[in-house]
Amino acid sequence: MIYLDYAAATPVLREAVQAFQKLSTEVYGNSSSLHDAGGTSESILHYCRMKLAEMMSGEAEGIYFTSGGTESNFLAVQSILKGLPSGKRHFLMTEMEHQSMHILKRYLAELGYEVGVMKPDASGIITTDILKRHLRPDTGLVSIQHANSETGVIQPLAELSAFLHERDVLLHSDAVQTFAKIPVSVEQLGVDALSVSSHKVYGPKGTGAVYIRPGVNWKPAYPGTLHENGFRSGTVNVPGIGAFITAAERTVSGMDAVLEKHQKLRSYFFRGLRERRLPISSAVPDSPQLQVLPHILGCFFHSYEGQYVMLECNRRGICISTGSACSAGYHEPSNTMKALRIQREQALQFIRISFGSDTSKEHIDQLLDVFEAMNHEKGDHRIDRRSKTHGK
Amino acid sequence: MIYLDYAAATPVLREAVQAFQKLSTEVYGNSSSLHDAGGTSESILHYCRMKLAEMMSGEAEGIYFTSGGTESNFLAVQSILKGLPSGKRHFLMTEMEHQSMHILKRYLAELGYEVGVMKPDASGIITTDILKRHLRPDTGLVSIQHANSETGVIQPLAELSAFLHERDVLLHSDAVQTFAKIPVSVEQLGVDALSVSSHKVYGPKGTGAVYIRPGVNWKPAYPGTLHENGFRSGTVNVPGIGAFITAAERTVSGMDAVLEKHQKLRSYFFRGLRERRLPISSAVPDSPQLQVLPHILGCFFHSYEGQYVMLECNRRGICISTGSACSAGYHEPSNTMKALRIQREQALQFIRISFGSDTSKEHIDQLLDVFEAMNHEKGDHRIDRRSKTHGK
Repeated sequence: MIYLDYAAATPVLREAVQAFQKLSTEVYGNSSSLHDAGGTSESILHYCRMKLAEMMSGEAEGIYFTSGGTESNFLAVQSILKGLPSGKRHFLMTEMEHQSMHILKRYLAELGYEVGVMKPDASGIITTDILKRHLRPDTGLVSIQHANSETGVIQPLAELSAFLHERDVLLHSDAVQTFAKIPVSVEQLGVDALSVSSHKVYGPKGTGAVYIRPGVNWKPAYPGTLHENGFRSGTVNVPGIGAFITAAERTVSGMDAVLEKHQKLRSYFFRGLRERRLPISSAVPDSPQLQVLPHILGCFFHSYEGQYVMLECNRRGICISTGSACSAGYHEPSNTMKALRIQREQALQFIRISFGSDTSKEHIDQLLDVFEAMNHEKGDHRIDRRSKTHGK
Repeated sequence: MIYLDYAAATPVLREAVQAFQKLSTEVYGNSSSLHDAGGTSESILHYCRMKLAEMMSGEAEGIYFTSGGTESNFLAVQSILKGLPSGKRHFLMTEMEHQSMHILKRYLAELGYEVGVMKPDASGIITTDILKRHLRPDTGLVSIQHANSETGVIQPLAELSAFLHERDVLLHSDAVQTFAKIPVSVEQLGVDALSVSSHKVYGPKGTGAVYIRPGVNWKPAYPGTLHENGFRSGTVNVPGIGAFITAAERTVSGMDAVLEKHQKLRSYFFRGLRERRLPISSAVPDSPQLQVLPHILGCFFHSYEGQYVMLECNRRGICISTGSACSAGYHEPSNTMKALRIQREQALQFIRISFGSDTSKEHIDQLLDVFEAMNHEKGDHRIDRRSKTHGK
């Protein structure tokens, strides 16, 4: 099987599995327990907090471990909103956020917050002009993903955070797709809070973290929370966190080389599409200013439904996806496609290919072979029957 | 080190670590992904759901995996409350619930629910009389722990659920301390919902589950939730769940033998206390009707603060605790002690010893030796200086 869905989940690194194994069997004390078994867990947790902070140029006291990216988003946003002055009840997010943010949006409305949703410009970018149009005097927090999980488009967070801070508004960013893939420095980005996840960086599922800049006022989402300095309730998953940090350290240290490799593979893929004259186009507008994660390739396979392409690839031993796994199975255009104002028919032609550390030119060749074979077949599965008739 | 704090956390079974390892490196697909990598994860998840349901005599469709016991309690109670008719806004729980339930109590109050808290009778039991006094016409859900984490006292859930069902009230139970320790059958107990945790049954931290009887109306705590049939958001931790179920199966299959062994060790411990004339008494009232988890021994070491006893044991290589790890470090009588109406001074003398699969007579002997040595020392650490002066 050729796996090209690394943006959905990554295999766990051997070193991370070993860390998990060692911690689960030798350092199993509850980190809240005051005896040595608990103390050892607590020390490891402290070390992990320090290491993760280092990796994002933050401070250890700003790290709060969670059960994953979704919970990171849930708790970061709620905790910060609860810490804002009572007059700041307006929360602003983008339409192309991860599914978890859209779920949170509905929950916040139930809690009595007002939530605004911004559309990006045609290239998928949130600009200061867009912010200006949506900000209100009672806006206290804005959440903008660092990069989109379907197109890979990276937001200009440093510019946006500076703009927001001048207006006394805080910025949270979902960095689940960027952390350990490109440099993520909370300092350089100027974000007040950040969400990351373990299973996107070759760590185990079931763990993640939030960074909140020390100095930002927040209150526990659940009042009276004791663990993680009051941020999250529940026994801290120290073995999982140890494995997460082990994986993150390895991934960050190999990041530059992987990034360069993925840039080349990306060019190789698009060159292959052109050379083979395949009716597949990038979902990322052609703009030299646009920064894109090289390992995420969002495309439209014209006149084929994405779902069909994905299944056909799967039948031939290649895993790709039709977008964020968290929304998979829902046969509707994704939030990202809607945000980019892509027409329904085209939106349903969307496929996502995402590279990982093991991806090679041979994998791309085989993927292109499958696409080419599909393009030569003239089955009933084409959406546009005319294309078929005319042999396009 | 002799570990006698199994009620706080257990080491992970080797078979469970192996399951985790295999699943993390070979079955890493996101279970929501529609390709084969995702499909394999989804099949394993389905198998785990079926197995866990079997272990509690429930139906697979009633199992929802979570990130642990605390989240199980949070989501079970909120989801069921949201599914109740609008006139049922009163929620009832006991004072001796786990810390997570007390946190939830405050959160529910913020959400506009009314929360009642019941004290047990003198022996720590919730009776139908107590329920009768607290039930209101608008009570929709009651939560009563299956067994207490500090005293091990088991509640007569079958009787209570029958009483509640006659009054059209649902019952949730936190079975984190009982699952895989004593038989837990949702059918026999008559509970409508149940919370369990992996790291109490020799599985990894970071996973747990809720059972909700199919037929009980519930709504997602977070509206629009997609994963776990709408119960919980976030990528499903299939490797963690696989390891949890592997551990649970082993623990359940060895349960009878361990239960018998723990009964004997419990008697051996209390006999040792008497023979050595140690001023240590059980926190469980002497009542033949009372059912108690044999592996949890809540005691008072008279004239010593529990914290001191715990640290002194730790210094001599034995891990015991002063109560629930989730409240450790907070030098106040626990909720359980308050519920049992134990005076502050005595409550602070509380210690908990909890046995696990590896606990032996030799461990008990060594613990008793430490207690005996402490009892012979006449340091400044005794709370009651008079006892010291009089040489008692």
